[in-house]
Amino acid sequence: MIVTEVKEKKTWLLTLFVLLFAIAGTAFAADDDALIKRALQVLGPLPASMPSEENPITPEKVRLGKILFYEPRISLDGTVSCSKCHPIALYAADGLRKSVGHNCTENPRNDPTVFNAAGQISEHWIGNRTSVEDQAKQAVIGPPSFGMPSYESVEKVLRAYKQYELLFKAAFPLDKEPATIDNFAKAIGAFERTLITPAPLDAFLKGNKDALTAQQKSGLGTFIDRGCVGCHFGPFIGGQMYQKFGIFEPYQKYTKSEKVDEGRFAVTKNETDRYVFKVPVLRNVAMTSPYFHDGSVDKLEEAVWIMGKIQLGKDLPKEQVQDIVAFLHALTGKIPEDAMTVPLLPSLQ
Amino acid sequence: MIVTEVKEKKTWLLTLFVLLFAIAGTAFAADDDALIKRALQVLGPLPASMPSEENPITPEKVRLGKILFYEPRISLDGTVSCSKCHPIALYAADGLRKSVGHNCTENPRNDPTVFNAAGQISEHWIGNRTSVEDQAKQAVIGPPSFGMPSYESVEKVLRAYKQYELLFKAAFPLDKEPATIDNFAKAIGAFERTLITPAPLDAFLKGNKDALTAQQKSGLGTFIDRGCVGCHFGPFIGGQMYQKFGIFEPYQKYTKSEKVDEGRFAVTKNETDRYVFKVPVLRNVAMTSPYFHDGSVDKLEEAVWIMGKIQLGKDLPKEQVQDIVAFLHALTGKIPEDAMTVPLLPSLQ
Repeated sequence: MIVTEVKEKKTWLLTLFVLLFAIAGTAFAADDDALIKRALQVLGPLPASMPSEENPITPEKVRLGKILFYEPRISLDGTVSCSKCHPIALYAADGLRKSVGHNCTENPRNDPTVFNAAGQISEHWIGNRTSVEDQAKQAVIGPPSFGMPSYESVEKVLRAYKQYELLFKAAFPLDKEPATIDNFAKAIGAFERTLITPAPLDAFLKGNKDALTAQQKSGLGTFIDRGCVGCHFGPFIGGQMYQKFGIFEPYQKYTKSEKVDEGRFAVTKNETDRYVFKVPVLRNVAMTSPYFHDGSVDKLEEAVWIMGKIQLGKDLPKEQVQDIVAFLHALTGKIPEDAMTVPLLPSLQ
Repeated sequence: MIVTEVKEKKTWLLTLFVLLFAIAGTAFAADDDALIKRALQVLGPLPASMPSEENPITPEKVRLGKILFYEPRISLDGTVSCSKCHPIALYAADGLRKSVGHNCTENPRNDPTVFNAAGQISEHWIGNRTSVEDQAKQAVIGPPSFGMPSYESVEKVLRAYKQYELLFKAAFPLDKEPATIDNFAKAIGAFERTLITPAPLDAFLKGNKDALTAQQKSGLGTFIDRGCVGCHFGPFIGGQMYQKFGIFEPYQKYTKSEKVDEGRFAVTKNETDRYVFKVPVLRNVAMTSPYFHDGSVDKLEEAVWIMGKIQLGKDLPKEQVQDIVAFLHALTGKIPEDAMTVPLLPSLQ
């Protein structure tokens, strides 16, 4: 009888545990559903492509664009290619505080990754490039970038390679003289428009509840609740608006900035644009240290805390910072297979 | 009857043509066999691997070595990696007259490709590096290369990355502290020892008579007959001996050299080593312009003619030069698939 009682007690306990677990599970699942719903209102999964009406993506353009992306012989000192500052191995950023162009010329700001870059309202920290095509075109004659003296000088180099003539002809079959600077920009733009990196967050937003860890889910909730999404919204988690850097306090009070950057004021000359920058895309942020427009901060935890302090006026507790950082790791995406292989450049012989 | 006669004549003519063609074919085939036989006496197909007794190749070492090959954060200004001067896209050379290291420091000589480099008697133009491992080790503290102040400073950077600790542990499982400069060099060396690029010449030497064009075969014959193989011998078509550059006349009389380089004299201080350089490997030479130790000549035709003039004392006629150049194109090899993909570097976060 005692044995039976114990057995009954055990069965009862087991039933209770199963019941509690089921309730908790349902609660967690409901939590996940609610979180996904909330997240979809402000974030959203990556699109399958980043098209352009002016520059339709074709395989031939992408092929040429990828080759040109690696081409250093169109720079003043022969050392600068797109891939110099955007090496795929470093998630298409360069790990420097500020990029270095031809003859070691320092760029004014930190190098943003070109992954998912075509999804933004504009390019560069201060939005002075209208598109990835515009960025590519202006970079070749940019004094701190490729530094070429003119567009004609770039075209002259390209036309010296028979293989480039063929590649341009294949990409722009209707053009009589296809190896032009505008087609150069279009080809690179077409390649960059393929550089989309879906991440665990996207799988989660599409319903795979195991795609994020518990801490990452908590971080996503915090990211929404504390107001980070006020600027870092949309499928690219940023890149859709300009914002003053240092709303509550001057940014240089917390960053390790060596000098103060007036930001978009340099473009518009509007007083309201002083210290205003484009809100950066946060996809792959864990792979693209250092941070901020001047690359003054190395660690993501520190960057997140500073953002809370100066943008939200909140001294985020360590646990929340860590949760947000865990969530930001869930934005590290898969690089398209084609971008993971190296193209071979034309030979002069 | 007339019809029959015509028919007979036609048949007779056809038989004659077939016979002539067969005889010519046999003659050509015999020529090919003779050429292959001659070539095998002085050249030879690429080996399947370039092993080292001191540094056995393992997949784990190669994996780590490939990542380190792309790593710029171990250089003084954060811009120099092995792949900076040896980008796969340019057949692991850099297209410059002289390579550029940290803070735009010019290297003393032109950049040889690392493809097939481990098959040489030594590394660098003047043979002052004993192996690819030695080259990798010395480059990180080389003033015109990575420019790091000490080996310890390199180790310190590597140890800051948790993922590097794991990769070194996997590659050197018996070492208590595996992230050392010697293991760094071994890993890069192991990766470079896999960079073998079999070319049409190798297929030809193995009996595929269609692997070379008629002009390339003619060029191969000329390359042997005119004496180029006196120095450019073996499976790597060079890399096995030192030789004075400018035997018949001073090289600077024909190259566009800005200054005279004393070559291996700088290493040995022997008068006999003045203007002596390691004979370069000619594999992939059509893809690795510009030419000579100072990169002073852009075009392969010009380089070949100069070589004939100053090394062989022969004013090679244009046709022979063109044939040799055609043959040199048959040394452009297939890059191993693994080397055609980009590794992803560890993140600091």
